Amino acid sequence: MPEALRDRLRSAFGDRAILGGPRLEAVREDRSGQRSDAPPLAVVEATTTREVQALMRLATETRTPVVPRGAGTGLAGGAMSSRGSIVLDLSRMNRILELDGTDELAVVEPGVLNGDLDRAAREHGLWYAPDPASRAISSIGGNIATNAGGLLCAKYGVTRESVLGLAVVLADGTLLRTGHRTVKGVTGYDLTALMTGSEGTLGVIVEATLRLRPVVAGPVETVAAAFPDVESAGAAVVGVAGARVRPAILELIDPVGLARVREHLGVDGIAGTPLEGFAPGETFLLAQFDAGDAAAEASVIDRVFTEAGGRVVRSTDPATGERLLGIRRAMHPALASRGSVLIEDVAVPRSRLPEMFRAIAEIGRRHGVEIPTLAHAGDGNLHPNFVFEGDEVPERIWAAADDLFRAAIRLGGTLTGEHGVGILKRRWLADELGDTSVGLQRRIKEVFDPAGILNPGVMFVDET
Amino acid sequence: MPEALRDRLRSAFGDRAILGGPRLEAVREDRSGQRSDAPPLAVVEATTTREVQALMRLATETRTPVVPRGAGTGLAGGAMSSRGSIVLDLSRMNRILELDGTDELAVVEPGVLNGDLDRAAREHGLWYAPDPASRAISSIGGNIATNAGGLLCAKYGVTRESVLGLAVVLADGTLLRTGHRTVKGVTGYDLTALMTGSEGTLGVIVEATLRLRPVVAGPVETVAAAFPDVESAGAAVVGVAGARVRPAILELIDPVGLARVREHLGVDGIAGTPLEGFAPGETFLLAQFDAGDAAAEASVIDRVFTEAGGRVVRSTDPATGERLLGIRRAMHPALASRGSVLIEDVAVPRSRLPEMFRAIAEIGRRHGVEIPTLAHAGDGNLHPNFVFEGDEVPERIWAAADDLFRAAIRLGGTLTGEHGVGILKRRWLADELGDTSVGLQRRIKEVFDPAGILNPGVMFVDET
Repeated sequence: MPEALRDRLRSAFGDRAILGGPRLEAVREDRSGQRSDAPPLAVVEATTTREVQALMRLATETRTPVVPRGAGTGLAGGAMSSRGSIVLDLSRMNRILELDGTDELAVVEPGVLNGDLDRAAREHGLWYAPDPASRAISSIGGNIATNAGGLLCAKYGVTRESVLGLAVVLADGTLLRTGHRTVKGVTGYDLTALMTGSEGTLGVIVEATLRLRPVVAGPVETVAAAFPDVESAGAAVVGVAGARVRPAILELIDPVGLARVREHLGVDGIAGTPLEGFAPGETFLLAQFDAGDAAAEASVIDRVFTEAGGRVVRSTDPATGERLLGIRRAMHPALASRGSVLIEDVAVPRSRLPEMFRAIAEIGRRHGVEIPTLAHAGDGNLHPNFVFEGDEVPERIWAAADDLFRAAIRLGGTLTGEHGVGILKRRWLADELGDTSVGLQRRIKEVFDPAGILNPGVMFVDET
Repeated sequence: MPEALRDRLRSAFGDRAILGGPRLEAVREDRSGQRSDAPPLAVVEATTTREVQALMRLATETRTPVVPRGAGTGLAGGAMSSRGSIVLDLSRMNRILELDGTDELAVVEPGVLNGDLDRAAREHGLWYAPDPASRAISSIGGNIATNAGGLLCAKYGVTRESVLGLAVVLADGTLLRTGHRTVKGVTGYDLTALMTGSEGTLGVIVEATLRLRPVVAGPVETVAAAFPDVESAGAAVVGVAGARVRPAILELIDPVGLARVREHLGVDGIAGTPLEGFAPGETFLLAQFDAGDAAAEASVIDRVFTEAGGRVVRSTDPATGERLLGIRRAMHPALASRGSVLIEDVAVPRSRLPEMFRAIAEIGRRHGVEIPTLAHAGDGNLHPNFVFEGDEVPERIWAAADDLFRAAIRLGGTLTGEHGVGILKRRWLADELGDTSVGLQRRIKEVFDPAGILNPGVMFVDET
């Protein structure tokens, strides 16, 4: 690092400009199982918007790349250090600035953890709907930067639907405000939505105005079932849609995944219920219903599951609901206990889920890899998983993933439903979007970041 | 018009290139009560995407401005002819291409009327949630171009939340596809959202993939009340939020508006109910609840309205519900029967509604104009109305509107909640967005439309 830059970081940020040591190594990773090529020049911990502005002015002046980073829980390599970059750590900007019960909104700094915001909202009879599985450890800034999904999206929408407005520091240090404190508002282009999911390539989110919802009253109904195979479970998912019912949660675990969960838990199903044990090849499907329609909807789905060949457990008992959901929650720990895990993230229209499961099985056979798969079946978002040894995803697994992406796109879907492109999927960007769209997107990037210092290498393959 | 251009339009579009006569006069107007400076060079009726592409190539080559137009029901002057332009009429592209019950989506051409799509969806047990008051006569393309709102937005979201993907013809005739057939998908920037609300300035929407929802089962509960004044009705709205209940509809008519409705209907309230007659100065507030929670929620709101000083009618009888909603529906006809109407469209955070009503009263007094006001109170969107004589909005009314816009922005709101900027509000754009945002938006416009031929003068004041 040039001596002058070092001095200026020290004088502007003091001890919060970290210029060596293990912190520089730590930011080479996120939760994707990947490791970046190099540590950054520095990690800078910002505590105020003004500090973010000062850093971006310095970065623009010195043409130094900046990687905005929150809690570091990304799954696509969107916030890992790159050679010659400064990692801008926003995790200390973690205050809930306002929580307004009448307007049902919160104003937060980007480092606030999703789960902490939800807990604070619940004290006011409200909740924050976007629920990535990482919600206990992932921060709002990163959730917005990736337009994070979760289990509840088919019913309650993705992160974008909960973002009313943003404050964003642009590449040159200027502060941009987007959106408003109202649900409606159509003055000008929707820069709030443009920023949401832009993975730190257009600006640094320093504040967000978020929509909250009234807490849903009444008991939660859980309907879970084991199906003889993944095809019949897929048919049940199609049947749920056909019954014109929209569960809050609809989660599917394929037979390979379910086998790993059973091994990991050391318990086979839920004792004292029809799901006391699972047979080999069985697929697990779980629906939960909230709100006042829950009982009627659960009855409909009980029938749909049964008619599709499922062995059904239905309960409003919270403990039983938790035990059933626990089977789904055990999926990632079960895989992580066996090695490094590459979690893929394709989505297809719900009606194509059976075809996608066939494609996954075929790809697994062709490449000789096991692909335990979890699906947010209500919105067609699948997480096919690859378990491997070591820090580096083996090429044969990338080859299988490549086939997965192409299958999803062919079925009218996407290569990433909720994790983002990051560095992991940038090489497939044009396969999904086409050259016209990628060309426009690159030019939008240039409007916001003419010097190319904001998270270079993320989303787009460097042209240089 | 240059002879060469005339010949090329004729040869490409035949009779569907209209080069003179009353059609050229008709497109000088929309439903804003405004009239544009000049008829266009031509109206071209496109029937296919290829024709739209051909027209845009011709327009780019000849640097001819193009004004995309659907049903012509806009309220902000966003689709009126301008001098030297071609009006691209998309109303004949009105086919529902696909309606998929399993994936709960429709693929439509832009000229499909909102109400026609909704009717078609209901045959499959689905519905299309965005419900602008114009839904019987406004087209999906225009709804998307303005990110149209409606009565149900606080509960079911604005148009943007229902748009999954678009096909858009760019200024140079290239076809761009955005989005996908899934609820989730985060590959690249959200160009679908960027297009939604862009008022024909970034491209011509030729196809939309739209999200449908399962029809809501069960009886609709209506709770309506008269309050002694607008302040107490405003307090009731705040009370609804405080009760953590979200009605499907929450509509407010202020005392001036209610007086005009009573005169127009010639009937004072709903016979045989506590709303048999209204006293001068009273404010009308109507809530409707759907879904399984309706009864419980209606009971809560009945209490909230009563405690806020309201005289309440509650009913699940559809005929009574319709009669109550009829009071609200009569608002616009009541005003239109008295002259030309300028419908304003500000929004403020719900908690600021009482302040906004005070501001409206004060502005009315100061400018000596009557401002009957309707509000989608659930989302803070107000329609203050101005009635005047003739075709041209008088300057004193614009002066009052100017004060309205500033008041809404000062209260954390917006100058247009759901109608768009068009040509009517472009001069206030920077007052709401600030120069940084407007600068970025102009540069985004340049990315999509470097020659400046797409709806010039709409949204942005021409810099030349």
